Amino acid sequence: MRDVYVVGVGMTPLGRHLDKRLRDLGKVACFSALKDAGLEPKDIQAGFCGNALAPAIQGETGVGQNVFWEVGINKIPILNIENACCSGSSAFREAWLTVASGLYDVAIAVGVEKTYTEKGGMLDIGKPDLDLMLGLVLPAYFAFVANRYIQEFGISKEDLALVAVKNRFHGSLNPYSQFRQPVTVEEVIQSPMISDPITRLSCCPLSDGAAAAILVSKEKAEKLGKKTVKVAASILQSGSYDNPMNLSNWDLNIRASEEAYNRAGIGPEDIDLAEVHDCFTISELVHYESLGFAKKGEGVRLLKDKSTYIGGKVPFNVSGGLLAKGHPVGCTGIAQIVEAVWQLRGEANKRQVENARVAMTHTMGGVKEGDCKAVTINILKRE
Amino acid sequence: MRDVYVVGVGMTPLGRHLDKRLRDLGKVACFSALKDAGLEPKDIQAGFCGNALAPAIQGETGVGQNVFWEVGINKIPILNIENACCSGSSAFREAWLTVASGLYDVAIAVGVEKTYTEKGGMLDIGKPDLDLMLGLVLPAYFAFVANRYIQEFGISKEDLALVAVKNRFHGSLNPYSQFRQPVTVEEVIQSPMISDPITRLSCCPLSDGAAAAILVSKEKAEKLGKKTVKVAASILQSGSYDNPMNLSNWDLNIRASEEAYNRAGIGPEDIDLAEVHDCFTISELVHYESLGFAKKGEGVRLLKDKSTYIGGKVPFNVSGGLLAKGHPVGCTGIAQIVEAVWQLRGEANKRQVENARVAMTHTMGGVKEGDCKAVTINILKRE
Repeated sequence: MRDVYVVGVGMTPLGRHLDKRLRDLGKVACFSALKDAGLEPKDIQAGFCGNALAPAIQGETGVGQNVFWEVGINKIPILNIENACCSGSSAFREAWLTVASGLYDVAIAVGVEKTYTEKGGMLDIGKPDLDLMLGLVLPAYFAFVANRYIQEFGISKEDLALVAVKNRFHGSLNPYSQFRQPVTVEEVIQSPMISDPITRLSCCPLSDGAAAAILVSKEKAEKLGKKTVKVAASILQSGSYDNPMNLSNWDLNIRASEEAYNRAGIGPEDIDLAEVHDCFTISELVHYESLGFAKKGEGVRLLKDKSTYIGGKVPFNVSGGLLAKGHPVGCTGIAQIVEAVWQLRGEANKRQVENARVAMTHTMGGVKEGDCKAVTINILKRE
Repeated sequence: MRDVYVVGVGMTPLGRHLDKRLRDLGKVACFSALKDAGLEPKDIQAGFCGNALAPAIQGETGVGQNVFWEVGINKIPILNIENACCSGSSAFREAWLTVASGLYDVAIAVGVEKTYTEKGGMLDIGKPDLDLMLGLVLPAYFAFVANRYIQEFGISKEDLALVAVKNRFHGSLNPYSQFRQPVTVEEVIQSPMISDPITRLSCCPLSDGAAAAILVSKEKAEKLGKKTVKVAASILQSGSYDNPMNLSNWDLNIRASEEAYNRAGIGPEDIDLAEVHDCFTISELVHYESLGFAKKGEGVRLLKDKSTYIGGKVPFNVSGGLLAKGHPVGCTGIAQIVEAVWQLRGEANKRQVENARVAMTHTMGGVKEGDCKAVTINILKRE
C-alpha cells in the first residue's frame, strides 16, 4: 500500500444553515479544499461522500453526486457512505484506500449534513428500535454510562462538567465553531436536565455543515509541493463489547486505537493533539482512558491539571469538539480531520497547538448498550 | 493490486416479503454465501452493505451492521453504501478493493432492499426534484428514450416488446425469479399503458430481496479449494453525457465498459453471458449497443436472431433480468453477480449457459436526462 497525503482541506462554519441545501454546503467545503490543494475539479479522480441522515430528513439520496455536480467534479467514480456519526470519517477512509491501493492518485472525501429543518431538529427520523421506544434515546444511554462511571470512580458532577468547560473555551477560539461563548462549571450543572446527570450543556448540539479533504499519492503531493500531512493510519472498526454490562469500558475504542497505533508505529505518548467524539461530556472522559491517555478512572486528572487544554501536554478537542464546534453527524469525522490538518500545518491561529507533529481524530457512531456501529481513528503526521 | 476471487454467493428469492425485515432477508443471503464458501461468520474480515432506500422507506440506517449482527459477523470494519440502483454493485466493488489492495483477505458484500410496504410500493420516498414534480418520473424518462430510439432507427413497438418476452422466458426457468410466467409480444403491448410506449410489462417490478458474495485473496481461494471465479474487472463510473439531447446514446456505458474491457484484457466478443440493467425494455436495447455488442440502431437484431436468448451467441439476462427476476434496488447488482457466479460454475440448472467462461454484470443507477449517478460493470472469469 502506498503512502497517502492530505493536500487540501476546507469546511463551512458549523451551525444552523436553514437557507442552504446539502449541495450548497458541500460545494463550499469542496471548493475550499480544492483551492487549498491548488487543484481544479477536473483533477479529482474519485469522490466519496459521507452523510448519515439526508434520506430520512431531506428525502435526498445520491448526495455525493449532487454535491460534486455543483462543484463540476464529474465523470468519475462516486460513492455515498452512511455509517452513523462515522459517515464522514468512513468516506475519508475509503478515499484513503482508493489512493493507498494505487487505484487512483487523487480522491476527495466530503462530509455533509443538515439536521435542522423548518420544523425544528432531527427528532422523528424513522421507526425506532424497541429500546428507543422504551426511552433509551442517546442522552439516556450516556447518562447510564456517566452514572456508572460516577459510581465506579467517585467523580463529581463538577468533574464531569469540566469537559464542557474546556471544549467551550476551545470553541471560543474557533471561528468555525457553532458555540463561541465559554461556560462555567455552574452553568453546565444548572442548565436544563436532559437525563441525570446529563444536562443540556453536557450534550453536543445539532448542527448543519460540510467539510472536505483531498487525498493524493506521494508523487502527486510532491508535484503539488504539499507533501506535508501524511495519513499514518486510517482505521474503521465496529462491533460488540466483551462485557456490555461494563458500561464505562468501551473496548471497541481499545481495539481500534491499538490497530491505529500499530499501523502508525507510535503510541499515545506520541500524539500532540486529539479530536475525539465528545458527543456528551462523559464520552471524552472514557475516550481518555480507552484510547490510552489515562488509566481507568483517572481521566478527570487530565482536565484538572489542564493536560488536555490548549497549552497542555496533549490538547483534546482544541477545535471545540462536538460540544462547542458542533456535530453535523455525517460531516463530523471530516471536520475533525480538517482541524487536525490545520493544526499540523500551523494554521490554526488563536488555537494553534505549538509544534504539533502528530494528530489523532476519533469518531464513534451508532452507540447503544453493548455495541457500537462504527469507530474510526485517523492518525495524521506532519513530515 | 492482488487477484480477487468470489468463493461464495447466496440470495433470497426476489418478490414481495412483507413479513420479513431487511435483516431477515440479508441474513439468509449471507448464511447461504458463507455455506457456499465453506466459511464461518468469524472468518469474515470486512463487511459492505448496499442499500438504496431503507432510510427513506423503513426509517432504518446502519443496515449493514443490523444484517451482519444477525449473522454473527462482528468486530470488523462495516460500511453502508448507497448509490441508487448501483448500491449493491458499489458495495461489491469496495469489497473487491479491500481485498485487492491487500488490506484484508476475506470480505463480504451484501445487497438488501425492501420496496414494498403495508401501504403499497415505494411511491412517496421523499422530496422530489423539480423535474420529478413536473412529471419526469422514471418510466416517463425511459419513454422519451424509447420514442427517440423508435424515431431514429425505425423499430416497432413489437420489436421493443421482444426484450420483455425474452427476459420473462428466461425468468420462467429461474426459481429465484419474481415473475415466472412467460409473456407474448401482444401481452406486453396490450398491458396497461404507463408512459407511451412503456407499458406495464415493459417495466421491471418493485421487489424485496437480498444477495451476498464473499470475496477473497488468491491464497485464501486456493486454501478453500475454490479458486474458480476471478474478478477480472470491477468498475464504478458516474457523470454527464457528452450530448444530453442524444437520448439513446448512453456514453457513460461506453466509458465504463471500455474501462472494464481494458482492465480485464478482453472485448465484448469474449463475453459468454451478460446480466444487464433492463429496468425498462428500451434499456436492454441501448445496453447492447453502448456496451459493444451491436452497432448503433441494430440491437433488435440480437433479439430477432435469438443471439441474446439462452442457447444464443451471448445470452443476456438469462436470470430473467430486472424485468422478470425483479429489481430490489440496492440488492440488484449483487443478485446479478450471484447469477454470473452460478453460471460460471455450471450450477444454473435449467437456465445454464453452456461452457460459460466469462460473464459481465452491468448496473445503472440514478438515471436522468443528461447524466447518471452510477454505472457499475463487473467482469468475472472462470479459471
